[in-house]
Amino acid sequence: MTLPLAVSPLAVTLGDPAGVGPELIIAAWLARERLALPPFVVLHGAQALREAIGQLGVDCPVRPVSHAMEASSVFADGLPVIGDKDQRYTPGSPSVEGAGLAYQSLQDAVGLAQCGQAAGVVTAPVAKSAIAAIMPGFMGQTEWLADRCTIAHGSVVMMLAGPQLRTVPVTIHCPLSQVPKMLTRELILSRARITAKALREDFGIKAPRLAFTGLNPHAGENGLLGREEITTIAPAIAQLQAEGIDARGPYPADAMFAAHMRERYDVALAMYHDQALVPLKALDFDAGVNVTLGLPIVRTSPDHGTAFDIAGKGIAGPGAMIAAIRMAGEVAARRERARAGA
Amino acid sequence: MTLPLAVSPLAVTLGDPAGVGPELIIAAWLARERLALPPFVVLHGAQALREAIGQLGVDCPVRPVSHAMEASSVFADGLPVIGDKDQRYTPGSPSVEGAGLAYQSLQDAVGLAQCGQAAGVVTAPVAKSAIAAIMPGFMGQTEWLADRCTIAHGSVVMMLAGPQLRTVPVTIHCPLSQVPKMLTRELILSRARITAKALREDFGIKAPRLAFTGLNPHAGENGLLGREEITTIAPAIAQLQAEGIDARGPYPADAMFAAHMRERYDVALAMYHDQALVPLKALDFDAGVNVTLGLPIVRTSPDHGTAFDIAGKGIAGPGAMIAAIRMAGEVAARRERARAGA
Repeated sequence: MTLPLAVSPLAVTLGDPAGVGPELIIAAWLARERLALPPFVVLHGAQALREAIGQLGVDCPVRPVSHAMEASSVFADGLPVIGDKDQRYTPGSPSVEGAGLAYQSLQDAVGLAQCGQAAGVVTAPVAKSAIAAIMPGFMGQTEWLADRCTIAHGSVVMMLAGPQLRTVPVTIHCPLSQVPKMLTRELILSRARITAKALREDFGIKAPRLAFTGLNPHAGENGLLGREEITTIAPAIAQLQAEGIDARGPYPADAMFAAHMRERYDVALAMYHDQALVPLKALDFDAGVNVTLGLPIVRTSPDHGTAFDIAGKGIAGPGAMIAAIRMAGEVAARRERARAGA
Repeated sequence: MTLPLAVSPLAVTLGDPAGVGPELIIAAWLARERLALPPFVVLHGAQALREAIGQLGVDCPVRPVSHAMEASSVFADGLPVIGDKDQRYTPGSPSVEGAGLAYQSLQDAVGLAQCGQAAGVVTAPVAKSAIAAIMPGFMGQTEWLADRCTIAHGSVVMMLAGPQLRTVPVTIHCPLSQVPKMLTRELILSRARITAKALREDFGIKAPRLAFTGLNPHAGENGLLGREEITTIAPAIAQLQAEGIDARGPYPADAMFAAHMRERYDVALAMYHDQALVPLKALDFDAGVNVTLGLPIVRTSPDHGTAFDIAGKGIAGPGAMIAAIRMAGEVAARRERARAGA
C-alpha cells in the first residue's frame, strides 16, 4: 500500500556545505522519479548547490522559490531552494562561514516545519565542533532540535533504522565506563515507552515488538558475568509488559542480531552506543537512517557524517540520504492521515 | 592452492551427547566427499551416534577403530569412532552421565593430539556448568585445554572466524563494568602478538593486518567520550608497530565492521566480548569457528552451544562444525608442512 504523500514538501538542510550534503541532496533529487520520493525543498545554498552540480556534471536545475508550497509544484522539474544565504562550494575545506550557513539552514528548515509549511525536516550532516565554535553549547542537531521544540533531551529518542534492523541505544554518547552507572530502570522505561509509541503512531506498527539486549556477555549468564540484567533490565521489561508493551529479553547481544532473531522483533533496544550501531552498520553501512522519536515535528537524517575526505568527488553513497527522505515522507504522511482522522 | 592433508586424522569430540554434537558430526561425515573434508575420528559414543543416525534416518555406518591411523583409511566408508565409553542417545535431556561422557571424549581427543596420533582437535559443544558439576573448577574447554597443555590462560587467544570476518576479543567473559579496568596495554600487546604469530604461522598470512576497535563510542572522539584510546589502546598499537606488526586503529567500532572496512584488515581486535561477537554473528550466525591460538596442538570448535532445545530434530545447521573441521585440517596441514621444512 502506498501512503498518500503529504502536500507540504519536506525541508532538507544543506548540512556543512564542504561535506557530502550538497552532492547527496542532488543525487536524491536526480532519483526522485525513479524512487517516487516525496517533494522536498533545500534551505539556502543555491549557489553552492549550482557549483556542486557543475562539478558533478549532472543535469539538475536549481529553482529558487519564495514559499515552501511552491516547491512541491516545481519539484518535478528542478531542485527547489528557499532562502538567500549562500557561499562558494569548496568541498573538503570546511570553514566558519560554512558552519554558519549550515546552522542557518537548520534553523530555517525547523522553522518551516514548526509553522506547518514543511511536512518534516531531513538534516544533512554537519560538523558538530564547527557549529559549536560559532554557537557555544551546540551539542548536536538532535539536542538542538529538542531544545528548539522545548522538549527535554531525555524525552527524545534516537532510533537507527536500516533495511534489516531498527535499533535504539539506551545510553548513547558517554564513555563506556559510565554506561553501567547511567543505565537505570527509569532510562530504559522512558526510551522504551517513547519508542513503542512512535512505532505505533509514526511507523504504523500496531503492536510493536521490543527486544532488549543484555548489558553483559551472554546477558550476564544468570548473574555470573554481571548483574545489571537482574537488577535493572529484567525489571524494566516486566514493568513494560505490565503496561501492555510487547517487551522481550534481555537476550545475549551476540545472538540477538543474527538473521533469524531479527525477524522476531520490530526494534532492538541496546544498552549502549556500539551495541546498537555495530550490527546496524555491519549489515548495511550505507543505508542507515537516524530518526528522532518523540518530537512534535518529523525529523530524519542519514546516519553518517560530513565525510570531508571524500566530499565533492561524487563517490559518496546517497542511499542513507534517500532512505532518510523516504522515511520522513512516510512518517509525515502517516501523521497527516491521523490528523485528518483517516 | 589445495594444501596437502595431514595423514593423521583430526580428533572430534562428541560434545554433550544430549546436545547437537552427534547430529552435527554425522552431518559433517555425510558431507565429507562433497566438501573434501579431512578425515576425522570421534572419541567415544559409538552407540549414541548409532542411535542418532537411526533417528535421523541417514546412511552413516559407524566404524569402531582401535588406532587413530586406521581412521583415515576407513573414513571414506564409515564414521570412525575410538574408545568404548558410551550411553543411550537422549537428545534434549542432558544428564550427569552425558556430561561425564563429554568430558571423557574431550580428554582422550586431546591425548591423541598431544601424542601426535591426531592432527588436531575439534570440540563439539558441551554444557560448561554440567561438566563443572562433576569436575569442579572446569571453566570451559579453552581454559581446560590451556591447563592440559601447561600454557597460562593468558597465553592462549580465542579467535572467532566467520566467512566475512575474523575477530579477537581482548577482554572476554567478564561483566561490562569490569572491562575498562581489565583493559591494559599489556593485555592488548599479548593478545595482538599471539594473534599476529598465529595468523602468520597457522593461517599463512605473511604480514597480517591487525585492526583495533576503540573502547568508547566514536573511539572516544579525541578524549571527549572516554580516554582509554589515548592512554591504553593507541600506545599499544604504537608499540606493536615498533615491533614490526601491521597494527592499525583504534577505529570507531561501528564503522570498523562495515563491509568496505572489513576488506582492509585480516583480524579485528575488539576490546570486549560483544564488540567482537555481535558483528560476527550478525553477519553469519551459523558459520563461526572458535579457534584457540597459542596452543601447541591445533584446536577449533563451532562457535555455538549445545542447543539442547533443538537437539535431535535434525534442524541444527552443521555449517559451523564443518567449517571448524575444515579449518583444523588446514592449520594442521600448514603446521605439518612447516615441520617438514617445506
